[in-house]
Amino acid sequence: MIVISERINGLFRSVMKAIDNKDEKFIQDLAVNQVEAGAHILDINTGPGVDNAPEVMTWLVKTVQDAVDVQLSIDTPKMDAMEAGVSASSSSVLINSTTAEAKKMETLFPMAVEHGSDIICLTLDEKGIPNDANSRCELAMTMVAKAMEYGIGPEKLYLDPLALPVGAAQDQGPKVLEALGMFKAISDPPPKTVVGLSNVSNNTKERPLLNRTFLVMMMASGLDAAIMDPSDTELVAAVKASEVLLNKKLYADDFLRA
Amino acid sequence: MIVISERINGLFRSVMKAIDNKDEKFIQDLAVNQVEAGAHILDINTGPGVDNAPEVMTWLVKTVQDAVDVQLSIDTPKMDAMEAGVSASSSSVLINSTTAEAKKMETLFPMAVEHGSDIICLTLDEKGIPNDANSRCELAMTMVAKAMEYGIGPEKLYLDPLALPVGAAQDQGPKVLEALGMFKAISDPPPKTVVGLSNVSNNTKERPLLNRTFLVMMMASGLDAAIMDPSDTELVAAVKASEVLLNKKLYADDFLRA
Repeated sequence: MIVISERINGLFRSVMKAIDNKDEKFIQDLAVNQVEAGAHILDINTGPGVDNAPEVMTWLVKTVQDAVDVQLSIDTPKMDAMEAGVSASSSSVLINSTTAEAKKMETLFPMAVEHGSDIICLTLDEKGIPNDANSRCELAMTMVAKAMEYGIGPEKLYLDPLALPVGAAQDQGPKVLEALGMFKAISDPPPKTVVGLSNVSNNTKERPLLNRTFLVMMMASGLDAAIMDPSDTELVAAVKASEVLLNKKLYADDFLRA
Repeated sequence: MIVISERINGLFRSVMKAIDNKDEKFIQDLAVNQVEAGAHILDINTGPGVDNAPEVMTWLVKTVQDAVDVQLSIDTPKMDAMEAGVSASSSSVLINSTTAEAKKMETLFPMAVEHGSDIICLTLDEKGIPNDANSRCELAMTMVAKAMEYGIGPEKLYLDPLALPVGAAQDQGPKVLEALGMFKAISDPPPKTVVGLSNVSNNTKERPLLNRTFLVMMMASGLDAAIMDPSDTELVAAVKASEVLLNKKLYADDFLRA
């Protein structure tokens, strides 16, 4: 599974402080730590509080890329900060994210084409997040079709069914699992699938247990990638056990250390 | 999920010793402990080593039923010991198990009818365990149809796709998950599904991790019951988290203690 680190995010107080202080060492140590913990991609998010998001995003991208050599996921709802992050990167990024809203697709798909980016497609539109699997799949198909109009193949797309907090929207868990299976049938080759994992346990006790349990279920349903915390060793152990049980990584007695 | 305790089994040295010594207190304390840990059914297995299996099975059944009031699963390949256990029980049992072999079905389905028993149906026959989901499903349909000839409805059947050790038959994990989904489509109402969990981690390191990870995946694929160790608190936590995430038990902040 593709592990996308969620930790370089201004929502975390320590990261916000490092951004405010332009503390390159803190950010770079964190980036190295996340890659060593197993992250294949680093999500880069300035956090909601910054006034000068494009400048901060540019600084974050350059700072991280001076320390590690992995793909970055540029995570912002602001189009100017997205353009800044995508342009600042020395290699192709993952755009996080478009939705099925026409205005977003018409801005972000051309940006992805120009820079050769991959792109996360959230299955929501002007009306919000659908409450069943079929409607999520319809929005996914809308985005896959629109991307193709721009010449973006399904292998560049990460479809996100949007995991919701189990405490607030408990009925949505099985629908997310069902949607993941449906997404894989949309095209051949299929688009990739991704989820922002920690949302499922938002405002609950037992966050790590709920996170790793839902991740295992989603992997069995076809999940390819997750934005998650690779520092959570029990979560990473669950990922490795799942890869072995799903016959995606060869079993060895020491598979946890592999 | 229906938790079937695997612990009252002569394969465990302490249980074998208690059987040899006719140590009622040991067996009864174990039975109470398993029910308190969350077992809904207790699997009763004399172990392979006993000469007088029918007498031992009768003693085990009566000893356990003097201490706890839950359903028993009579687990033996010996027809005389099965008949002894089923007859000794003061209430209806779960017969563990028939296969799709004609001789077994022709003995055990009438026994289930006579005693009002539920029955586990292993998807194997004279040729062994199939190596794909479709063939498992064919054997399952054979057993469901044969049971119906005897007047046994699908609600009395527990179909077992046979989880195999990941270290020895790694490709079978995804096929077991696929088979579980197929079993649920065999009839309406559907038969129940069950698995002997610990087999998946046989001869591996990291047994608890592999057990709980595969159990979560199987629950997402439609598993109703598992023969497992309810004393494994992390395994039970994974079951409770899965029930909440699959929207089968209402979420509460203290769901682990519910």
